[in-house]
Amino acid sequence: MNEETICAICTAPGMGAIAVIRISGPEAFSISDKIFKAASATKSISNAEDHTVLLGNIHQEERIIDEVVATIFRNPHSYTGEDIVEFSCHGSVYIQQKIIQILIKNGCRMAEPGEYSRRAFTNRKMDLSQAEAVADLIASTSASNHKLAMQQMRGGFSRELDKLRNDLLHFVTMIELELDFSEEEVEFANRKDLNELAEKLEKHLHKLTDSFRLGNALKNGIPVAIVGETNAGKSTLLNKLLNEDRAIVSAISGTTRDVIEDTVNINGLTFRFIDTAGLRQSTQDEIEKLGIERTYQKIEQAHIVLWVIDSTMVSEHIEWMAGKIIPRTKDKSLIIIFNKSDKISKDEQLVLDDLFKIYSKNRIHISAKKGENLDILRGKLLEIAGLPDLERQDIVVTNLRHYEALTLAHEAILRVQQGLHDNHSSEFLSQDIRECLHHLGQITGVITSDEVLQNIFKNFCIGK
Amino acid sequence: MNEETICAICTAPGMGAIAVIRISGPEAFSISDKIFKAASATKSISNAEDHTVLLGNIHQEERIIDEVVATIFRNPHSYTGEDIVEFSCHGSVYIQQKIIQILIKNGCRMAEPGEYSRRAFTNRKMDLSQAEAVADLIASTSASNHKLAMQQMRGGFSRELDKLRNDLLHFVTMIELELDFSEEEVEFANRKDLNELAEKLEKHLHKLTDSFRLGNALKNGIPVAIVGETNAGKSTLLNKLLNEDRAIVSAISGTTRDVIEDTVNINGLTFRFIDTAGLRQSTQDEIEKLGIERTYQKIEQAHIVLWVIDSTMVSEHIEWMAGKIIPRTKDKSLIIIFNKSDKISKDEQLVLDDLFKIYSKNRIHISAKKGENLDILRGKLLEIAGLPDLERQDIVVTNLRHYEALTLAHEAILRVQQGLHDNHSSEFLSQDIRECLHHLGQITGVITSDEVLQNIFKNFCIGK
Repeated sequence: MNEETICAICTAPGMGAIAVIRISGPEAFSISDKIFKAASATKSISNAEDHTVLLGNIHQEERIIDEVVATIFRNPHSYTGEDIVEFSCHGSVYIQQKIIQILIKNGCRMAEPGEYSRRAFTNRKMDLSQAEAVADLIASTSASNHKLAMQQMRGGFSRELDKLRNDLLHFVTMIELELDFSEEEVEFANRKDLNELAEKLEKHLHKLTDSFRLGNALKNGIPVAIVGETNAGKSTLLNKLLNEDRAIVSAISGTTRDVIEDTVNINGLTFRFIDTAGLRQSTQDEIEKLGIERTYQKIEQAHIVLWVIDSTMVSEHIEWMAGKIIPRTKDKSLIIIFNKSDKISKDEQLVLDDLFKIYSKNRIHISAKKGENLDILRGKLLEIAGLPDLERQDIVVTNLRHYEALTLAHEAILRVQQGLHDNHSSEFLSQDIRECLHHLGQITGVITSDEVLQNIFKNFCIGK
Repeated sequence: MNEETICAICTAPGMGAIAVIRISGPEAFSISDKIFKAASATKSISNAEDHTVLLGNIHQEERIIDEVVATIFRNPHSYTGEDIVEFSCHGSVYIQQKIIQILIKNGCRMAEPGEYSRRAFTNRKMDLSQAEAVADLIASTSASNHKLAMQQMRGGFSRELDKLRNDLLHFVTMIELELDFSEEEVEFANRKDLNELAEKLEKHLHKLTDSFRLGNALKNGIPVAIVGETNAGKSTLLNKLLNEDRAIVSAISGTTRDVIEDTVNINGLTFRFIDTAGLRQSTQDEIEKLGIERTYQKIEQAHIVLWVIDSTMVSEHIEWMAGKIIPRTKDKSLIIIFNKSDKISKDEQLVLDDLFKIYSKNRIHISAKKGENLDILRGKLLEIAGLPDLERQDIVVTNLRHYEALTLAHEAILRVQQGLHDNHSSEFLSQDIRECLHHLGQITGVITSDEVLQNIFKNFCIGK
């Protein structure tokens, strides 16, 4: 249990009808009682029942600062597992700051970012991956990343891992017992059972690490590169997708002006569109060459590539372009977009379809300028992005830290399997199992270091 | 009691650790129970005790939207006097909007601005002036306007008025009884007692209307005009006052670029500094003349005038300037500021003091550029602003609507006094007393119209 009592404004910054200030720690009740007088004279926070609210005034000496509602959570039945008081006050910025000031004067300390959640973790109210999910949940801006965070916060992901880890722990104990009797060649750990467990774990870890590509995309937006010749209408298309959706989450300028990224929410799924520099054959200009290199990199990072072609002017470079784009999108989804379709006839469209039929089954005729067929494009994006996976309640890893730990755990368990196959000694087996246990333990926080915790919680917002 | 159940996000807009959603109305419990499942299976919002909190999940069909804390306030023990549920959820913008969406789907209506407070008024949880003070309290940005709003919210202002109004009501009933017996010349209302009451009321109303000048200044910032010749350093001074305090509340550009207003918080008191166009003698330019006209207007509106003079270059126009400024500041506080004092000697400063000794007892030598003696200036401003009045717990009127009603009530009571003095008939007296009662009743809302209420509450924030 922590010694210090902390306080922070928990609601969004600025003026609102109400604001909430949270106090947590051993002195939460006694400090609160110093500054709070209940409307009913016989009541106080210290003697209030758990999970009840009291109406009263916060005062500084004789001066009343605000009429507030105090909610009392008694340790361990609180978010942090400590005594907690939440003051719901009038949402004036002045009042919020004043109450924090008075709390600090009376012995509280300002909470650091994520400190409430860190205490919740320390007091075993949640494991580390759950605490991390709280931050993701608060930052969630779409149905899909909300769902992933919620799933993780509810332990859907760490519970199964913990179970497997415990099973594995049992085996390593047995194996290490064998070491004590190494001259007697006993086998406490059943190798067949261990092999089965290792297989099960390997499969599970493989599935989880595999899910990260999707999870990361869902969390940060599915990367979609928009490529094509200059003037094919790439930027017009991007702007249309952004403006029509009126759901721009952020706009990040690339390192140079020729790569622009923007995220858009389509039916609860976030896409990160990446506009790239126009591709051109035989560029002498060194600077342009750099731009084209960058375009290739962006294709590399994308899950989906939109190749925008000017329908009215299928250039002589098209074969060259195809040669550059197609090989780079072999393991991705490529959508060929014939833009400016309003300027050509239906027959001409069919000719284009025919011309490109070997390249992709995804071909769409649109007019970015007039907004024609953009709904079909959106539908295709959703179809390709594979939201169905998510609906089947599969567990999806979204956190880079977890992914790295899972990958290392996976490598270790593969070595365990190999060791079992090669009849390695208990000593070697035990080492690899220990390593696997270590990495698994880091995810839920069974094994952790202050540095890791600091890194995790510093990215939380204040008040959580 | 209202038929509709309303909901709104009550905390400041945007992402925070937590957000609060408030539901009020006859269906608050039943709607909440449809979307909320308590962690403890036997509990529900409908059967929860008053002033308690429940942990649970908000769900949409099978999907969990968030883990929340629900606070239950049973009618009439709530802010609005109706049944209220407050959901404290994770402060993701997505979650906030989603919960509101689900509530509306289940029969809630979005609350209009101020609708909770309006219901509190309708259900007699507070009178109208108290409800208005809630909005002022939320908007308060400094110790002084916070204090005024708090005083008003706690009824310090309306309670006394209500008492006097009731006394007056007693008299008018008596007087109107006399009308029924008009042919018999009876006097049910003791004229001497009525006269005493009228005198008391007149005094009280006079004091209140008088306090509005201060109240308005404290609420909106005490207006301080900065005048002087071009290049005397007016803008430098303004910027210094603003930047050094790092407490700029707002920056409003005037209708033209030559009047700039900015508010600054000095020791809990808000000052509204008004930079004006430089005054110059014999301006032919029509546009400049307009600017100077506007400067005069700003002096008119100010409570305090700072006349900034360039110490290094007391111009030949100084007499002309004095002739323009001094007569316009007779009923105001004038501070003469010798700027650029770092560039002249102490002796030269004394010469300047001597030169201006007839104009003002407030003279300060400063260097705006170097920030010298600005503390003395701030001290003078605080001294002049008269915060002591506030400390004596005097009641101060800050609301224009109240001021207007008080002024009309005051005029009516003066007519009552005159009528008593001139021995007017009961009929005439009754008319004037009724008018006074009407205006007093409008302040606390005993007498009101839907239009007035609409006007008052539309300026509230949503969620209050």
